[in-house]
Amino acid sequence: MKNTKLSVAIHTLILISESEKIMSSDDIAKSVNTNSSYIRKIMALLKNGGILTSRQGVSGASLAIPKEKLTLLKIYQTVEQTASVHVLDIHDNPNDACIVGRYITPVLKEVFAEVESEFAQRLKGVTLADCIERIEEKSGYYE
Amino acid sequence: MKNTKLSVAIHTLILISESEKIMSSDDIAKSVNTNSSYIRKIMALLKNGGILTSRQGVSGASLAIPKEKLTLLKIYQTVEQTASVHVLDIHDNPNDACIVGRYITPVLKEVFAEVESEFAQRLKGVTLADCIERIEEKSGYYE
Repeated sequence: MKNTKLSVAIHTLILISESEKIMSSDDIAKSVNTNSSYIRKIMALLKNGGILTSRQGVSGASLAIPKEKLTLLKIYQTVEQTASVHVLDIHDNPNDACIVGRYITPVLKEVFAEVESEFAQRLKGVTLADCIERIEEKSGYYE
Repeated sequence: MKNTKLSVAIHTLILISESEKIMSSDDIAKSVNTNSSYIRKIMALLKNGGILTSRQGVSGASLAIPKEKLTLLKIYQTVEQTASVHVLDIHDNPNDACIVGRYITPVLKEVFAEVESEFAQRLKGVTLADCIERIEEKSGYYE
């Protein structure tokens, strides 16, 4: 099954960042092509994580972190509600009567965590502003 | 849902590489803690990908690639049946009436592919022999 939380969150944040008008969850859902309750769920996660802020008395939300400083790692961690990036799973309860079964879990945990930590570093190297810039380049916004 | 194909494949390959006796899919399934039909499915993928070889007239399988040269990337690509490493999904059919909806897919494809390609490089840097060495270290095999 697909996990598109990160990509939907990026799409949502770009709309909130770049739109001149205040974007409702309905507006965002139409652009993302999903339902507005899912967008509200993603926005609640982004608010809890300190990425979005709601201005009192004003509907809609705005970025609480400048787009140049908002990394894909921070967005990932926020919507996945995890400090570490997790992309490789390990099978449960191997048989510890066998030497491989006994040590495979800690060894794969180490190895996968090292690989995943590099992956996290790469996600940290890309900001929301980078994504927006690429959209502008592709759309010829500045041409 | 967990995807443990890579970790089950690594476990299976370590057993085949390091066991003195020939390991049946039943033996491997007991160590991994799964059913033998699943192990046979994984082994079929590993044979198709040229990682395992069946010796004619001899039951069981052996490594077709030396463990020092067998990378986690090769194992991943083989069991996932893909040349590229894919870990981040993108939502389907955003609305192209909106400029963000129109360009978000190609932009995220580019950005995610760059991050995933670094991840692939890291998986390429770890071999089956590295995993076996770590199991030996933890188990005190050489102490």
